[in-house]
Amino acid sequence: MNNQIKIGIVGYGNLGRGVVAAIEQSTDMEIAGIFTRRAPESISVHNPNLKVLPISQAEEWKDEIDVMILCGGSATDLPEQGPQFAQMFNTVDSYDTHAKIPEYFDSVNKAATESGKTSIISVGWDPGLFSINRLMAEAILPKGETYTFWGKGVSQGHSDAIRRIEGVKGAVQYTVPIENAIESVRSGENPELSTAEKHLRVCYVVSEEGYDQAKIEKEIKTMPNYFADYETEVNFITEAELKEDHSKLPHGGFVIRGGHSGEGNKQIIEFSLNLDSNPEFTSSVLVAYARAAYRLNKEGQTGAKSVFEVPPVYLSPKSAEELRRDLL
Amino acid sequence: MNNQIKIGIVGYGNLGRGVVAAIEQSTDMEIAGIFTRRAPESISVHNPNLKVLPISQAEEWKDEIDVMILCGGSATDLPEQGPQFAQMFNTVDSYDTHAKIPEYFDSVNKAATESGKTSIISVGWDPGLFSINRLMAEAILPKGETYTFWGKGVSQGHSDAIRRIEGVKGAVQYTVPIENAIESVRSGENPELSTAEKHLRVCYVVSEEGYDQAKIEKEIKTMPNYFADYETEVNFITEAELKEDHSKLPHGGFVIRGGHSGEGNKQIIEFSLNLDSNPEFTSSVLVAYARAAYRLNKEGQTGAKSVFEVPPVYLSPKSAEELRRDLL
Repeated sequence: MNNQIKIGIVGYGNLGRGVVAAIEQSTDMEIAGIFTRRAPESISVHNPNLKVLPISQAEEWKDEIDVMILCGGSATDLPEQGPQFAQMFNTVDSYDTHAKIPEYFDSVNKAATESGKTSIISVGWDPGLFSINRLMAEAILPKGETYTFWGKGVSQGHSDAIRRIEGVKGAVQYTVPIENAIESVRSGENPELSTAEKHLRVCYVVSEEGYDQAKIEKEIKTMPNYFADYETEVNFITEAELKEDHSKLPHGGFVIRGGHSGEGNKQIIEFSLNLDSNPEFTSSVLVAYARAAYRLNKEGQTGAKSVFEVPPVYLSPKSAEELRRDLL
Repeated sequence: MNNQIKIGIVGYGNLGRGVVAAIEQSTDMEIAGIFTRRAPESISVHNPNLKVLPISQAEEWKDEIDVMILCGGSATDLPEQGPQFAQMFNTVDSYDTHAKIPEYFDSVNKAATESGKTSIISVGWDPGLFSINRLMAEAILPKGETYTFWGKGVSQGHSDAIRRIEGVKGAVQYTVPIENAIESVRSGENPELSTAEKHLRVCYVVSEEGYDQAKIEKEIKTMPNYFADYETEVNFITEAELKEDHSKLPHGGFVIRGGHSGEGNKQIIEFSLNLDSNPEFTSSVLVAYARAAYRLNKEGQTGAKSVFEVPPVYLSPKSAEELRRDLL
């Protein structure tokens, strides 16, 4: 028996692979197993010591795994897996359907409270680190406005929407924050800005041979909800260019609060991320919060939590004394 | 009896006045009294309802005050007042002598543990919000470097050092982060940078009549510890200009972590502040953490804490449900 925190991973897509990479950077954790719905032998992992197991066997690992990191999607995987795994394991997930978070929290909370486990939901950067910054900035400067900008980064939902258009062979959509809007917010002017006034949508599209590019461009730009309300730029490129220049998943963004104190002194708080790899960063956040879930559970703090309820000290492998001495 | 959190303020300088202003923006708090070592009648407060009392009477308010915010300085006030008030009250302070934080924590912790009170030490932005960001960024991206830049802002210590030079009538020193250094850090290059390579020192000086400005300038630029190692700019101005253009106390800065995930993807986390009034902002942070001290104590979490041990949810007057619904 060693003292490493034993982590299980449910789901081996971009997020799951990112969790493996993040744990390899962590001195106090190790991977007990990867659980998948696919045939385990169909999954290739770079490290031959990693066990890949059918998800149906997860329950047998109840006593071997300290925290299960759920790497499934919010649409169909997590609403089922969240409460199901919370009956057996401490869990961490990146549930991000904002409107349904209260409902999801309740269902995971019920399961985790009954099992005496600790589940931290909606972990990542938004929801996650951005949320913490919104909360803290508003609590510190109650008079003011908070702005969230996303990008520059790939939006999977918008890229998929373009790919569904007839005659489109491939597409990537970048959400790009508008520089003038950021500058206005940073100056403390607290402008009124809609989401569309804060972001451009820049599309790189590969068309099928024989299709009218002007027609495709018009179809994109007039697509309701996704593009119609936004300034949208459409660029046609070759399939080779798409693969060469647009296969990474960068992202990032800004949370800025323009507040006032005393007799109208402007006070600006800003948090920003500039990420080469969105899934790898989200995974890194999940791993730090897995450490927190483990410790909260050891302390008897059971049930569902959001990032709001987690003290920063639990995220670090260092002791509170060390952290006060070196980082405070 | 109402449900407001009742706050006492010890010390009525820039910070104490900032606390009054911040509580006036808070819906769930009220000021029970201001405690001073000066003659109470010598202190003018803009609101006639505010009680100003001699510090010797503080103990009589033990049962009336939920949290005492200690607004004294770190050199001589807090080492004495911190443990003393923790014997009677929940407290929050902005102790900022980095090297002595472990010792200060221990002395406050002993007092607060014995009294069953909760004391949050070293609250503000550095130590404080910057510390939290250093901790979280390092925990999330263990491979990488963290950089702290200060400014543009007034350094009281450096301004005082100039004022002690013979022939100097008045002076203000701004610490200014070097733009190229910030850009290099933001790009993820993780350069090696000393404090001097990150900051300029810009001085505005009023000389006494009959003194040699060139001699004063040389004395500033060669002053050990304060200026000798830095690029330092000295500007002579009139007393009227000093008063007109340099009487505010702006400050701010940046905490940037350049990390790597997976196969060398760059991930940049940045937190920054741009403050018109450094003391008013520090006070606003103190007030949010006073709310946390009150709640932690209600929960039985006694003893000394740093900002690292405080869950974000305790800073906000809103409920956890509301916060999950609106800000997560």
